[in-house]
Amino acid sequence: MNKIYLDNASTTPIRPEVIQEMANVMQTEFGNPSSTHSFGRGAKVILESARKSIAKQLNCSGQEIIFTSSGTEANNWILRNAVTKIGVKRIISTKIEHHAVLYPILELQKEFGIEVEFLAILANGHLDYLQLATLLEDPKSTLVSLMHVNNETGVVLDLNRVGELCKSANAYFHSDTVQSMGKTEIDLQEIQVDFLVASAHKFHGPKGVGFAYIKKNTTISPLIFGGEQEKGLRAGTEAVHQIAGMAKALEIAYQNLGNERNAIFELKKYTIEQLMNQFHLLKFNGGFETFYSILNIQLPFAPEKTAMILFELDMKGIAASRGSACQSGSIKPSHVLAEILSEEELRKPSLRISFNHQNTREEIDYFISCLAAM
Amino acid sequence: MNKIYLDNASTTPIRPEVIQEMANVMQTEFGNPSSTHSFGRGAKVILESARKSIAKQLNCSGQEIIFTSSGTEANNWILRNAVTKIGVKRIISTKIEHHAVLYPILELQKEFGIEVEFLAILANGHLDYLQLATLLEDPKSTLVSLMHVNNETGVVLDLNRVGELCKSANAYFHSDTVQSMGKTEIDLQEIQVDFLVASAHKFHGPKGVGFAYIKKNTTISPLIFGGEQEKGLRAGTEAVHQIAGMAKALEIAYQNLGNERNAIFELKKYTIEQLMNQFHLLKFNGGFETFYSILNIQLPFAPEKTAMILFELDMKGIAASRGSACQSGSIKPSHVLAEILSEEELRKPSLRISFNHQNTREEIDYFISCLAAM
Repeated sequence: MNKIYLDNASTTPIRPEVIQEMANVMQTEFGNPSSTHSFGRGAKVILESARKSIAKQLNCSGQEIIFTSSGTEANNWILRNAVTKIGVKRIISTKIEHHAVLYPILELQKEFGIEVEFLAILANGHLDYLQLATLLEDPKSTLVSLMHVNNETGVVLDLNRVGELCKSANAYFHSDTVQSMGKTEIDLQEIQVDFLVASAHKFHGPKGVGFAYIKKNTTISPLIFGGEQEKGLRAGTEAVHQIAGMAKALEIAYQNLGNERNAIFELKKYTIEQLMNQFHLLKFNGGFETFYSILNIQLPFAPEKTAMILFELDMKGIAASRGSACQSGSIKPSHVLAEILSEEELRKPSLRISFNHQNTREEIDYFISCLAAM
Repeated sequence: MNKIYLDNASTTPIRPEVIQEMANVMQTEFGNPSSTHSFGRGAKVILESARKSIAKQLNCSGQEIIFTSSGTEANNWILRNAVTKIGVKRIISTKIEHHAVLYPILELQKEFGIEVEFLAILANGHLDYLQLATLLEDPKSTLVSLMHVNNETGVVLDLNRVGELCKSANAYFHSDTVQSMGKTEIDLQEIQVDFLVASAHKFHGPKGVGFAYIKKNTTISPLIFGGEQEKGLRAGTEAVHQIAGMAKALEIAYQNLGNERNAIFELKKYTIEQLMNQFHLLKFNGGFETFYSILNIQLPFAPEKTAMILFELDMKGIAASRGSACQSGSIKPSHVLAEILSEEELRKPSLRISFNHQNTREEIDYFISCLAAM
């Protein structure tokens, strides 16, 4: 049997068309887009076409898309800029954000003494919107930073609702959309958001490239100083082939969104049914009505089995995870599940599986048969 | 006639073997190197092999190599860390550094009020080593930041001499080696340096990836916070294919260094001879005994011709530049030449040409014939 990849929230296989596009750009347009000669202009055309293509997918303007080396860099930049340049005195967030948001916030709190409010997380993995509304009554200069789709549970934030709340309170709104970009429609003329963040390798593009959406007329200065690239907002020669690959990946993702979402949604439903047939005391962390590509399973196994489950699946060629890959070397329990589970539940083995459009029912059957044999 | 690329200090064509390596990695090892399953471990092996390969070329330890998204990022990180974590109170540098060093220094001066000393630059483009020695007599906590090979003039710093001076004064030494990496031997057991910086696209590798050499036991904390990648020093999923491409490019660069350096050196000599035959009042900014791949020509043309020269060369398919590509959109005169030329000389048209091993005498002949026709 082939190996089975059920860890698509961690990273995704790169689409062949994307690899082809990147190889083409590297072969034919190696110029530095800041150079004014024909080699530079050729690279610049690719760069700016990519920017326009991404902006079109999100219904925003090209000048609102700034390329970065990762979602992490974009999150760090936006959060730091909010404090040091916009003058934000308070950040409202949650403890279930990805570490690429949580740790920069804690660092800013330490460096600048800003106020940080972490919203309560309910047992279903959702935040308390009423608490958010209440906090926003305080008129102090505030950034709200809330991820769109939680990378561990798949719980989905109501972007529209939070956007409206922030807008009426004059608060800035930043959303880490790393898990949702390319996997659900995002219309920036509809959502009241100031900052979004994306990472290409989460939507079948290359690693090491991402972008920030920075709403027009926002005060912003660089995190990385040097050349005048990206309108002076992000120094460093642009990674043209990476950016072209990212734009291609996003384009294909949105072209195929309807079909691929349906296929994954059906597969997730099948997985849930099969799991519930197999294990009667199963629970889903954050419930099962989460984002269609993510399922976080609490297995009715003894706590001491936790360490062995991923290992045994791996021995059988199945890749799943306990949560964020960024922490997968760590033995600490998930900081996300720690916020929503009881002590007792937290000791039970939990497993995140995350799908792509190429996963099959046969793969799921085999995965469940392996789990059942443990 | 084919197009002629004489702007290799700005960026270089990517070697076909590098593109092939990157495509292979993207096709076969898409895993997240932080994942513990087999997909992740496959990616991790590539990542760590690349680190070892680079460390071997530089005769240092793998743990001293940290991957970044660019030379610019690495410079920003090292400089900021020196001030905020090491507690450096003074930076000694020059005004002829690349903006990726100069601007972070000015930003740190503004943010933290550190002392900045810019060394005098002599008319030959070299710095005043005696002034450096004198300044280092002051025992305050100091970082010396001096580029190895100037990207505009090709003037070469005596790394050994500066390293010894810094060591005996207990000062930290950072060198931006973006122009020299892969183009000259760097033995880190010989040079007394604490921090080096490299960018793959300067040595026929991909754009958007670089590395920092951070000497063992140096106090260092991240610029970008989040996951625990790079031993907790640089968050963000590692760009495995980019890093593999960079390692491959550096490996090939050092395998071929002898031959390619000879070829380029001979071509530069030929260029100098032909230029001097053609233009009797020609001068070379920084002299012509500069780094073998760079030549900065002061043309005996009227100042008003400046704007047209690059344009006319470009019309004939020849790519050269006035200096750093990062500023090539700008109409400001070069900040490097401003330090070494008189007012009168600065008004004359200067042109940087920078070679690679594939440039030919025929290309140079055509380039000079185009210049002669202006």
